[in-house]
Amino acid sequence: MSRKVAVLVGSLRKDSYNRRMAHALAGLAGPALTFDDVGIGDLPLYNQDLDNDAPPQQWKRLRDQIRGADSVLFVTPEYNRSVPGGLKNAIDIASRPYGKNVFDGKPAAVISVSPGAVGGFGANHHLRQSLVFLNMPVLQQPEAYIGGAANLFDENGKIANEGTSDYLRKFVETFSKWIDTILPAEGA
Amino acid sequence: MSRKVAVLVGSLRKDSYNRRMAHALAGLAGPALTFDDVGIGDLPLYNQDLDNDAPPQQWKRLRDQIRGADSVLFVTPEYNRSVPGGLKNAIDIASRPYGKNVFDGKPAAVISVSPGAVGGFGANHHLRQSLVFLNMPVLQQPEAYIGGAANLFDENGKIANEGTSDYLRKFVETFSKWIDTILPAEGA
Repeated sequence: MSRKVAVLVGSLRKDSYNRRMAHALAGLAGPALTFDDVGIGDLPLYNQDLDNDAPPQQWKRLRDQIRGADSVLFVTPEYNRSVPGGLKNAIDIASRPYGKNVFDGKPAAVISVSPGAVGGFGANHHLRQSLVFLNMPVLQQPEAYIGGAANLFDENGKIANEGTSDYLRKFVETFSKWIDTILPAEGA
Repeated sequence: MSRKVAVLVGSLRKDSYNRRMAHALAGLAGPALTFDDVGIGDLPLYNQDLDNDAPPQQWKRLRDQIRGADSVLFVTPEYNRSVPGGLKNAIDIASRPYGKNVFDGKPAAVISVSPGAVGGFGANHHLRQSLVFLNMPVLQQPEAYIGGAANLFDENGKIANEGTSDYLRKFVETFSKWIDTILPAEGA
């Protein structure tokens, strides 16, 4: 049985370090997890006035994709010491309308990736504050604040440093166990 | 001399409490401040790939409006214990490209408005963390976490409660003095 992981990447840049990280994690994960890349770049800004019986179809698509997943992985850069607006917009959309939060109860993990030394700590923990409200049980350890993003990847998009690669493999393995801890076994 | 205040409202809902608060504050402010409502609802999501010599014209409009203001007032609801994605997107756009942050050095104030009792504290302080990075000297006291938004306004959009009205008048007066403290006097 493979668990479906909806992956939300916080950067819209085509060649972003965070997108490369999402791909690298999928490669490290093994068959226990299936990664589903959830697009957030086409989402109209959240506006409650539009959230009626016929909301924008991109919002419906986002909500359906998350509803269909077992868990959610957030891979995010830091913009101005916080979560990028585009990622927060996706979160706001998927949390609404009131009482229909599609994130509710889904196990989650957060990894932040940045070129600097602090590794996106500010974004990582701002995001975690929202996940409390969204009622997502979040993987606590190992934390993943990945700095020095410019030197992270080799020319094939793989993690260039063996120590980092081992750490990230442990991260996804622990996330996989966390999902099994939170969710009932299939057929149980 | 009247100081120009760019006002960014975090909700896109037409009849939002935060928009009504922005209007009420303008009414309380007196001639020392001129409020300029800066639209954020039409801004394409920030994507560094588009931030070249010809960025989206809405981004240019936003950057020009903020560049032309003396100061910035943020009026925001709380979405999922943080800043709404739409407002954060505007902030991200105005902070870029690297080295061209149009917020730099401008005095700012933050007011959060919500229907609940906590008054948007989570959004207010997440926003303040970004303003540190943006190098905006922010009014510290009085803080403004305005809860119970559903009962705040009378039928004319004025603040219904005299105590709250006095508090908000003091808030904008102190903000006005703060702007004068930070910025050099015109013609000085």
